Amino acid sequence: MPRPSNPEVRKRLLAAGLDLIHSRGFAASGVKDITDAAGVPKGSFYAYFPSKEAFAAAVLDAYWIDIETRLVPILHGDGSVQERITRFFHALADDHEAANFLLGCLIGNLSLELSSSSEPIRAQLISVLERWGSGLAACLRSGELRADLDADDIASRLIEAWEGAALRGKMIRSRIPYDRFEADTIPALLR
Amino acid sequence: MPRPSNPEVRKRLLAAGLDLIHSRGFAASGVKDITDAAGVPKGSFYAYFPSKEAFAAAVLDAYWIDIETRLVPILHGDGSVQERITRFFHALADDHEAANFLLGCLIGNLSLELSSSSEPIRAQLISVLERWGSGLAACLRSGELRADLDADDIASRLIEAWEGAALRGKMIRSRIPYDRFEADTIPALLR
Repeated sequence: MPRPSNPEVRKRLLAAGLDLIHSRGFAASGVKDITDAAGVPKGSFYAYFPSKEAFAAAVLDAYWIDIETRLVPILHGDGSVQERITRFFHALADDHEAANFLLGCLIGNLSLELSSSSEPIRAQLISVLERWGSGLAACLRSGELRADLDADDIASRLIEAWEGAALRGKMIRSRIPYDRFEADTIPALLR
Repeated sequence: MPRPSNPEVRKRLLAAGLDLIHSRGFAASGVKDITDAAGVPKGSFYAYFPSKEAFAAAVLDAYWIDIETRLVPILHGDGSVQERITRFFHALADDHEAANFLLGCLIGNLSLELSSSSEPIRAQLISVLERWGSGLAACLRSGELRADLDADDIASRLIEAWEGAALRGKMIRSRIPYDRFEADTIPALLR
């Protein structure tokens, strides 16, 4: 039997999956919850995705593509390296604040929930972080970075410190850790 | 009916719960899995803990008390502030490496999994982070910290950057992010 390929259904499943997995986590989001939220029959899920893991990897990819489309261009816009990097993370923090800090970063959430138990999702997480790191490193290389600093290394440390700030922001439901990261950690790491 | 109070059973439940919740997460660890691993009848779980959430809060408390007992003394031992802080986080990274980076930090794991869905666990997480931050801030105040730096603020940023490093360490199963945090982020934040 040929697989159905209604792009609209696939899109609805991914959007519903993003909402659910982002807010509840992977284990707590059942396939039936996802198909109910998307308004499609449960059986159609496996017509579009071979497994729930493959589905979560696709959700993660869509999550990152959205950030890449909306926010990564900031890294290559006007201003000094520090200004552009600060503006990028500020916009990301705005996303978190718009959800009242209840969702956090999907990349961070899935990293801690699934890195030990799902190889396909772990591979997707690693790929997304590489893309994110490359974007930051390209920005760092375009500017006044000191010769003794390594752009890839700083990009990794920025992402890691930001994920930690987002973790605390989700825990205390506050912008404070994000502001602290912007005001103090970014300058400290670029100094 | 009076609640049973065999401290040995309570201890076995907590130890089994720590293993399971640390490796699989909260949602993926069923009460039956926990009682099976502890070798006690399922019914006895609720004789010791009013809910699975209360149980996870107790597991988290035990997890932190273990770190507090073994590792926090390093913060108040010999050496400069930077040496003591580096040694503390190094020992914590040793714990993660001993588990082949499969477990990560229970505090980080539960923060991202449950901050939006469980108030009792969120309260316990906030309390643990406050205790951790106080220990680090006391260490910072005991040394040569610059007058314009705020000890509580730096303590928070150290914890957040470390949680982010641990998140990536779990994802890529490697000591690299921990080493990077130790060699570069700690000095940058204390500078």
